[in-house]
Amino acid sequence: MSAAERRRPGEFSLIAKYFQPLAKGTEGAFGLLDDAALYRPASGSELVLTLDTIAADVHFGADDAAESIARKALRVNLSDLAAKGAEPVGYLLSLALPDDWTEKWVGRFARGLAADQRKYGIGLLGGDTTRASGGLTITVTAVGSVPKGKMVLRSGARPGDVIFVSGTIGDAALAMAVRRGDIKPSDQKVAARLEERYLHPRPRVALAPVLRRWANSAMDVSDGLVGDLAHICEVSAVGAEIAAANVPLSSAAKSLAAGSEAALRTVLTGGDDYEILATVSPDKAERFRRDAAAAGVRVSRLGMIVEHGRHLPVVFGRDGSPIAFDGLGHTHF
Amino acid sequence: MSAAERRRPGEFSLIAKYFQPLAKGTEGAFGLLDDAALYRPASGSELVLTLDTIAADVHFGADDAAESIARKALRVNLSDLAAKGAEPVGYLLSLALPDDWTEKWVGRFARGLAADQRKYGIGLLGGDTTRASGGLTITVTAVGSVPKGKMVLRSGARPGDVIFVSGTIGDAALAMAVRRGDIKPSDQKVAARLEERYLHPRPRVALAPVLRRWANSAMDVSDGLVGDLAHICEVSAVGAEIAAANVPLSSAAKSLAAGSEAALRTVLTGGDDYEILATVSPDKAERFRRDAAAAGVRVSRLGMIVEHGRHLPVVFGRDGSPIAFDGLGHTHF
Repeated sequence: MSAAERRRPGEFSLIAKYFQPLAKGTEGAFGLLDDAALYRPASGSELVLTLDTIAADVHFGADDAAESIARKALRVNLSDLAAKGAEPVGYLLSLALPDDWTEKWVGRFARGLAADQRKYGIGLLGGDTTRASGGLTITVTAVGSVPKGKMVLRSGARPGDVIFVSGTIGDAALAMAVRRGDIKPSDQKVAARLEERYLHPRPRVALAPVLRRWANSAMDVSDGLVGDLAHICEVSAVGAEIAAANVPLSSAAKSLAAGSEAALRTVLTGGDDYEILATVSPDKAERFRRDAAAAGVRVSRLGMIVEHGRHLPVVFGRDGSPIAFDGLGHTHF
Repeated sequence: MSAAERRRPGEFSLIAKYFQPLAKGTEGAFGLLDDAALYRPASGSELVLTLDTIAADVHFGADDAAESIARKALRVNLSDLAAKGAEPVGYLLSLALPDDWTEKWVGRFARGLAADQRKYGIGLLGGDTTRASGGLTITVTAVGSVPKGKMVLRSGARPGDVIFVSGTIGDAALAMAVRRGDIKPSDQKVAARLEERYLHPRPRVALAPVLRRWANSAMDVSDGLVGDLAHICEVSAVGAEIAAANVPLSSAAKSLAAGSEAALRTVLTGGDDYEILATVSPDKAERFRRDAAAAGVRVSRLGMIVEHGRHLPVVFGRDGSPIAFDGLGHTHF
């Protein structure tokens, strides 16, 4: 045991100091003082369960701020719940710490979680803190609640459905390209705005009830817009046609993607958007858009679900001809 | 990308080939083809949720058989559910693979999971497969079901309760000591039997209904018998008195612990037993023991819960005087 290790708290005092406060108000968490959490589903509700892992140098930079890493770990899971029309209720956390962890880092990580717990109205239900050989790895299991029978699936897309996406697409993927040095923005403010989207996904929690009411299918866009739309096509046994010109871009993304074929491909197939892709019957499309706007979320029409062909979306470029893709999506693998 | 990497399947084909078959019969898993799983709680039931992470070179040897690692990841969680009186229903899996993973290893890992799914009647609900920087890290979130109000807590121990433990204690801790070279058994059969207990914990799933019926408090013994009993004392605000001579030992453990003070300490404070510690009102103790035996689980009386002192268990040695401990438990940290 090194001197640094002797100065660090052990597992139980780390939990007591930093994680028990996060579970304080959570019903059924027993202050993290039991083997497991109890969850009492509300009458007439069903549970939605999702798990996502993020690892250093794969999903985030090992030197990113601890608060940001905490928020990302939580938010990528809340994004999955939102896409299913579920309200988040709590989460379980696995924190596998590298050898060189410090108490200060854990304190900042816990502060990031605390801020997001307040923001999203959720509590820590349980978890595990352990040492791992290698880099930091964080797994969150998020628990959500939906009214009985109301979970929104990927498999409900029908020919004729209007395809919508929330927010703007491609910012995080462009931020990664900037991090890799593949794209060099001349304006540092542009780089900073993209980086912010990469660091802090914005799960569309407010969209959950709107999706439950109007959407035939939905999923969160985490592995790239075109690849994720292909997933909806595959499980719904349909095809899709969208126009690249309809893909909503932030002004930062616009400034990079304008005139760059490579940047456009990054936008369409890059990952980490954490926006919502949804398909809605044409007669409900306008009401969906209006309710989403009322919930504070702008949604854009991308195109239409069609009879199934090869289960692959066709993306029409500005010249009206389909864009060819080598690979359809980004993988964190 | 190296030649080896090119020969390996990508994330989606890995999931399709090895993990979707594990979710095939699981209601609400959607064949792992959606963002999240749906769980419909049975009427009158509540959920028990637990998460445990195991990491290479911390909780298992990186060279242990893939099937064994898979089983351990699952079983340490099923042990938590059993201790709470919950019936296991499903699990979510996070598999963070090191750089040198092979498809063969993943295939064997999935076979280990499949075997235990059959053994315990559970299915895969969802999960995430990712690459991690460093060693293999596995997180399982297990979902269990209890009749409403029937979860068995750590906090229910009352003075006068009889303290029981299932099975035998110390085998896995002695196996770790053998792995470290701290203990050198003369008989290789003894070493093999201990190693088997370390590799393959036996979650006491059959004890769940018996605990629900009779126990005032229970927990699973994973961080060492004495330290875990201290946790029950702390949250129940009671003390405990047990006799070292009452701690049930396997014949393999007996052959090592006989006459060795150090081995006895390893048995009492070592981790990874995955047995159940329970306290039962004295008037129900015999019925608890009988029902446990009928369920195929031998339970042994260790001692008694007493009025709270310092919330620390007192362990009486063979000479009738209390044994002093430096640290109360094993930590995987």
